[in-house]
Parts: sequence; structure tokens; C-alpha cells
Amino acid sequence: MKISIVGSGNVATNLAINLKDAGHRIIQIAGTNAAGITSLAYRVNATAVNELQPIDTSIDLLLLCVKDQALEQVANALPKSDTLVVHTSGSVAIDVLNKFRNHGVFYPLQTFSKEHVTSLNQVPFCIEANTKTNEDLLLNLAHELGAKHLIINSQQRKQCHVAAVFANNFSNHMYAIAESILQKENIPFEVLRPLIQETVRKIEFLSPKDAQTGPARRNDKAVMADHLNQLKSDKLEKIYRFVSESIASYYTLK
Amino acid sequence: MKISIVGSGNVATNLAINLKDAGHRIIQIAGTNAAGITSLAYRVNATAVNELQPIDTSIDLLLLCVKDQALEQVANALPKSDTLVVHTSGSVAIDVLNKFRNHGVFYPLQTFSKEHVTSLNQVPFCIEANTKTNEDLLLNLAHELGAKHLIINSQQRKQCHVAAVFANNFSNHMYAIAESILQKENIPFEVLRPLIQETVRKIEFLSPKDAQTGPARRNDKAVMADHLNQLKSDKLEKIYRFVSESIASYYTLK
Repeated sequence: MKISIVGSGNVATNLAINLKDAGHRIIQIAGTNAAGITSLAYRVNATAVNELQPIDTSIDLLLLCVKDQALEQVANALPKSDTLVVHTSGSVAIDVLNKFRNHGVFYPLQTFSKEHVTSLNQVPFCIEANTKTNEDLLLNLAHELGAKHLIINSQQRKQCHVAAVFANNFSNHMYAIAESILQKENIPFEVLRPLIQETVRKIEFLSPKDAQTGPARRNDKAVMADHLNQLKSDKLEKIYRFVSESIASYYTLK
Repeated sequence: MKISIVGSGNVATNLAINLKDAGHRIIQIAGTNAAGITSLAYRVNATAVNELQPIDTSIDLLLLCVKDQALEQVANALPKSDTLVVHTSGSVAIDVLNKFRNHGVFYPLQTFSKEHVTSLNQVPFCIEANTKTNEDLLLNLAHELGAKHLIINSQQRKQCHVAAVFANNFSNHMYAIAESILQKENIPFEVLRPLIQETVRKIEFLSPKDAQTGPARRNDKAVMADHLNQLKSDKLEKIYRFVSESIASYYTLK
């Protein structure tokens, strides 16, 4: 397929490179960040386009990989055409692309960085499209990338997105707090790696609800009181107390 | 070495089996849970002892793998001897074993389950002992198991333990909440696995502080407001707001 992309951030970069590697031609990389689009266009052998209007729509797919808040504006700025126009956002409903005869959503449930491009193998793509033909095209595209798919509507995709915030951003914040506690004792964060890896390995065969352990789960008040004493930071005490209460209530109220 | 163990829980089971596999002889498994000690003794070809007093102290090492609150009582009940007596708790100070001429702590920074015994390869053991000879013995023992070691005092070990609660128990609770959000839409938790694995892979080369992403990190108020709308649960809204505020303050106040 001939594919063009608006955007040059983490999602644009990872999709562009994986699509090229799967045998597709990336025609244009468009956007307002001149340095970003030039660099990505170079990596995937495409043309950099520094405006939205001159985008060549004689292609099979136009991927919009821009910030959620910019999507409406980008859709307005683009010319009408029959090209399939797809956004990659978890939070924005499909309607934002209503002006295009063929439109859809292709949202990867993954965290990306420009610096470390990763394979999309096994990554679930949340797919939504305005026709069965467009849906099938996106579904095939996901499979070609070695990815998985979920055919879900905009409302369900938003739930996936908020779940992803807990599973990724919030769990990472727990690691960051652990790191800050160890730093005060000059103990490297590395000592927690086997524990973190085992926590994740466990939920390959157990539900996280069933995998839960620790003082809050077993309501071990003595250990929790001791931990609160150890923290010596109002902020950390508050979050320790709050998450512990959430764990406790999770197992008694349900 | 000839080693006996008090306890038959997750730590006792994982240590007993790994020590036996490393070539040590497990002599006795002692404790009050008759079914537990019988079963573990059988697995490691040891004798089950249903009381603490008849423990044979003509051994090289006695490992106490009992609940934190039971440690003092177990230490009181055991006969005095020159045998090295060691506990495996993250929270309890070494002093609880003062009555023994040779004593120490051998605390693995790992989460264990009886049902899935894991290798101790790369697991850091927090080691503390009352003499250099005893410290060296525990250090060698860790290395024989393919494990790593941290020679730290009781205060530092407590900090490791509370850091482990954040890194393991609290991150797992974030997964459990994500699971509950997806369940309402009948979406299987499996869809988050690649994201969770990538989150953990990232912190192999980035500090968790630097790896942090998401709406709270970039102070994206529109997405956060939308997520809060999606949650439709006071409890989940509260924890979303609280952890997001913690992330935000972590990057502005420091």
C-alpha cells in the first residue's frame, strides 16, 4: 500500500518504520515540526511535507498520528478525498473524521518512544471504521505487522485507554517511588528488577486480582504501621495509605 | 551444608527446594502447620518436625521462614546453640535473634508462591550477620544459588521492603484496577500484556522517573478530565485523581 502519515512523534515513528519494514511504501510525512518530519521522512525514504494542504491524496491510507487536541484542526485543514483517513488516538471518537468518505481508527495499545523503535508483534490494535471494507483493510494491516486486533467502538476504546493509564503510567509511577525510596539509602534501583519481572510473569497465568500479595492484601496492620514509620515523607505516607486502603477495599467490598 | 527450616510457606518452600537443588541437605522442616511441613519435608526429602523443641541443632544453618509477628516467639521457643540461626524477613531487625551466638538475616527481594517454585538466579539477597564469618557463609550461600547479594543493615533492609511494596504490590494493584475497567466492557486483560511488558522493558535502560509518560506526566488536563468522566466509579475516580496528582507533583516539586 501507499501510505502517508501526518505527525513525527512516537506513534508516527514506530508505525512508519514497522509499515515500511512490512513492505509498504511511505509516500509523505507531513506536519508542523519541520525537524521531526525531515528526520522521520529520511528514515523511511519518504518526502517531508511542511504543510497539510499539499498532501498527495492519491494514496491508499493516510494515518493521522497527532496529539488528541490537534486532531479536529488537522481534519479541518485536510482536503476532502476518497482516501481512507485514520487516526491513532485512544481517547478521540471516530466522528472527528466524519468529513472523509472513508475513515477509521487504528489505535495501538502500546507505549512507544522515537528513540527505541519496537516491533508491533502481538500488540493489540483497537480498530474501528465507517465501513466493513475499511475495517477489513485495517484488520489486514494489523495482521501484516504481526499485531493482534480488537474491533471495538469509540466508547470501548476510551475504556482501554484509561485501563492502559493504570497498567502503564500508574504502575511506572509506583516504580519511580520505589526508586526514590532506595535512592535515599544509596541502593540502586536494579535490585528490584527480578521482583518486578516476577510480578509481571505471575500475571501471565494469574489474574492480577488473584496475584495480589503484600501487607494490605493480608491486612497486616503491624507491617503497614512500620512501613508508614519508615517513609519519613508526608507525600509518600499519604500514597502508601491511599493505595493500601484501595487494595483492602478491593478485596472486602467486592 | 546441613540445613533445617522452620516454616512451610512460600519463602520456606522456594528456599528449601533451591537449596536442595544446589546440593545441600535439608535435614528437618519444622513448624505448626502439620500438613504444610509434611508436604514440604516430602518434597525435599527431609524429616517433618511438628514442634520446635526437638529440632536437631547439630546442623550448619537453621532458617526461620515464619511470619514477622511469629519470629520473636519462635526464637524464644528454640534451644540455645552455636548453630547459625537466620531469619528471612524484610521488616524485622536482626536483634530478634540476639539470643543465638551466631545469627543473621537472609532476605530475598522477591515474591514467591508455593505453587510455582522459581529459580533464585539474579535475586538479590539482603544479608546481615553478627560476625564476618557468618556474613561470609550467607554470602557464599547466595552465590551458590546463582543469586546476588546486598550487605545492608536492618534499617536499610526495611527501606528495601517498603520499596518492594510499591514496586510489586502497588503496581500489581494498578493492573488489577485496569483489569476491572476492561471487565466491564468484556475485554480480556490479555490485551494489556504487551503494554505491561514494554513498560518493564523500558526500565531496563531508563530510570522509572525518566520513563514516565501519560496525561499526568505531560499535564494533559483534557485527557485527564475525559478519563475521569469515563471511570463512572467514585472509588476509581479518586485513585485516578490521586495518583495523577502524585505524578504531577513528582515532576514539578523536585
